[in-house]
Amino acid sequence: MMINPILSVNGERLNNSISRLAEIGKLPNGGVRRIAYSPEDLQARDLIKKWMAEAGMRVRIDAAGNIIGTYAGQVKNAPALATGSHIDTVLEAGRFDGTLGVLAGIEVVRVLQENNIKLIHPLEVIVFTDEESRMLGSKAMSGNLIDDAEYYRRDDGTAIQICLERIGGNWDKVKTAQRSKSEIAAYVELHVEQGGVLETAGKQIGVVEGIVGQNRFVINVNGTANHAGTTPMESRKDALVAASQVVLAVNNLAKSSQGDMVATVGAFKVWPNAANIVPGKVEMSLDVRDLYVYNLYNLLISLQKQISAIAAKTQTKIIMQPTLRVEPILGKPEIKDAIAHSCHQLQLSYYHLPSRAGHDAQEIGKITDIGMIFVPSIAGISHSELEYTSPEQCSQGANVLLQTLLQLDKRYPA
Amino acid sequence: MMINPILSVNGERLNNSISRLAEIGKLPNGGVRRIAYSPEDLQARDLIKKWMAEAGMRVRIDAAGNIIGTYAGQVKNAPALATGSHIDTVLEAGRFDGTLGVLAGIEVVRVLQENNIKLIHPLEVIVFTDEESRMLGSKAMSGNLIDDAEYYRRDDGTAIQICLERIGGNWDKVKTAQRSKSEIAAYVELHVEQGGVLETAGKQIGVVEGIVGQNRFVINVNGTANHAGTTPMESRKDALVAASQVVLAVNNLAKSSQGDMVATVGAFKVWPNAANIVPGKVEMSLDVRDLYVYNLYNLLISLQKQISAIAAKTQTKIIMQPTLRVEPILGKPEIKDAIAHSCHQLQLSYYHLPSRAGHDAQEIGKITDIGMIFVPSIAGISHSELEYTSPEQCSQGANVLLQTLLQLDKRYPA
Repeated sequence: MMINPILSVNGERLNNSISRLAEIGKLPNGGVRRIAYSPEDLQARDLIKKWMAEAGMRVRIDAAGNIIGTYAGQVKNAPALATGSHIDTVLEAGRFDGTLGVLAGIEVVRVLQENNIKLIHPLEVIVFTDEESRMLGSKAMSGNLIDDAEYYRRDDGTAIQICLERIGGNWDKVKTAQRSKSEIAAYVELHVEQGGVLETAGKQIGVVEGIVGQNRFVINVNGTANHAGTTPMESRKDALVAASQVVLAVNNLAKSSQGDMVATVGAFKVWPNAANIVPGKVEMSLDVRDLYVYNLYNLLISLQKQISAIAAKTQTKIIMQPTLRVEPILGKPEIKDAIAHSCHQLQLSYYHLPSRAGHDAQEIGKITDIGMIFVPSIAGISHSELEYTSPEQCSQGANVLLQTLLQLDKRYPA
Repeated sequence: MMINPILSVNGERLNNSISRLAEIGKLPNGGVRRIAYSPEDLQARDLIKKWMAEAGMRVRIDAAGNIIGTYAGQVKNAPALATGSHIDTVLEAGRFDGTLGVLAGIEVVRVLQENNIKLIHPLEVIVFTDEESRMLGSKAMSGNLIDDAEYYRRDDGTAIQICLERIGGNWDKVKTAQRSKSEIAAYVELHVEQGGVLETAGKQIGVVEGIVGQNRFVINVNGTANHAGTTPMESRKDALVAASQVVLAVNNLAKSSQGDMVATVGAFKVWPNAANIVPGKVEMSLDVRDLYVYNLYNLLISLQKQISAIAAKTQTKIIMQPTLRVEPILGKPEIKDAIAHSCHQLQLSYYHLPSRAGHDAQEIGKITDIGMIFVPSIAGISHSELEYTSPEQCSQGANVLLQTLLQLDKRYPA
């Protein structure tokens, strides 16, 4: 009997874990609801802690409620390699978003344990608190928490102090959850793509270039409302005509930009919004995302120029106000190389792509080197009971994670 | 002492009548509210009937409640020349819209009476019922009433039968109000412009080319709602991007059309209307008005072509459904000539322009020759307490009406 020379995960065990966790918070339609700090979240956290302990990990909860399972390494005080993700969900979720990264991390440790392998570095598997709403866990770890308990109060009115207490955290000491590069040498996160790029490209693994930055604005167009019957075309200051030009300018700039930029006008409201009145005002949102600050900056400069021209031509006033700014986080080249190399080893096809959704890795990327591995989402669907990644694809992702960690263990100094 | 050889109205008397009528339904802000069939409307109608009788007119109320004052002519059974307008108002009105046409008509008769002048034709001054909401009076006279009492039920729930009874009409006999060219040879209406064209052009009198036709549509754009972060630009079916192109196509077609066409997208709604979602659906109104069916038709044909191209390019479905169609009514050239000639006689500057608002003349134009005379509205404002036309401008309009009727009396066979 020939033995595969490459260490690999137990796919069946991994997928059983995924199924088992999906029972907690299962919805009648087959989806999952496991809101952060809810009874379902607590139940799932207990199961995770149990599995971590069974895999030989020391488990601790930091002040932000992050579950940190540590599989000891050969060099005692070496910085850790880390992996993980989250197990909380949105209101109507699937079973893979977040969960896959956590369970693949545990599965990696299980394989190491049963093969009596210790890495040079300690290996941490981290379950980040509340990724789906405020990213409290990863933001606490990166030191980017907002210093205002009210900001973290839940929609149901529960104070964050109470929420953190429930899961073993402590708001008063939440700053102690902050960590640094000297503690975590590198962080690698496996996640489902939540988009259709890999499926369209027909590739098995995504090597994530980085997590896109995001700029959001509110754009106000002020014209003059007037009678649609009696106001000649040439004397109109039609806010909708001006706003339509802005929408098309945004679309054209994003399309002609280098790379994978996306720009969207999604919210759009017209006043007074009546068939017989020339629109006097439009308010719209603008959301721009790209991996490179340079591209974002270029688009915004060009857009501002075009908006000035549109305002002058349409005799309207157009004001653009920023409401959100998230810097892009790039994957560390050495980690991307390790992921790509793992794919070669495992004979899996791969594709370089940006992550256009936010992830815990985005926060951790502010304190240390990060990388992300994507597996395909069928039809690009996520945040829905229809979210699906096959057992084989989940196992492939976990194997890439395992091989990547093994490589990083050699590359990073202890 | 030199006597002006041109017969003219008594401007002071006319403007006193306007002020007197504005007392009925006067609002605290100086505006007027005289909703059709209301106590104020009834009180105003009584005053009008009294004034008509004092001016030597025989007064009758037809089944549609129209007040018809007839100043007998020299030839007993000759078809009448007619003038008039309405005295009902919108909720917040000024004192000139409608009223000026009625009171100028009465003033013309007063002048004829005090100068012992009888026209060849009988001269009718008509107060049309409920111009401001359903145009019941003029539609009954043109035979275009909708045969459904419910359609005419008032917003406050009052049945039209009761409303008409109040003002001396009779719903059961409303079809008897219909008239024909054999009874009315021509109808001339003086009205305030309710727009700013005359003021901008610096002209005293408007010779109305006709009342514009109006086509109204609902346009539905169906794309696919999608995540604004994870959906690449090239795979989007963005309904707002498509709809913006439609808005600009409408605007450009109207601007490049011959003549005075106006086209407006006034109502515009986006779904799901969230900053982080590519819009999946847009519903918008389209309102197109022009004096010439040919122009309206041309614009709609061109727009349909452009919409097909936009739909193909944006991968959306765009459906345009008609909701309203009002045919344009052209002023009779002979009547326009008479109006212009009167302006020359009176040394008043004039300007040819379409009426972009609806008027009773629009209905009467379906059964006989019509013409309209406009006087300027300061700043183009109407349907507001700020509506204003100076006493001098009102008198100028009434004088043009008088001279026009005198000319038509000679031009039309008795």
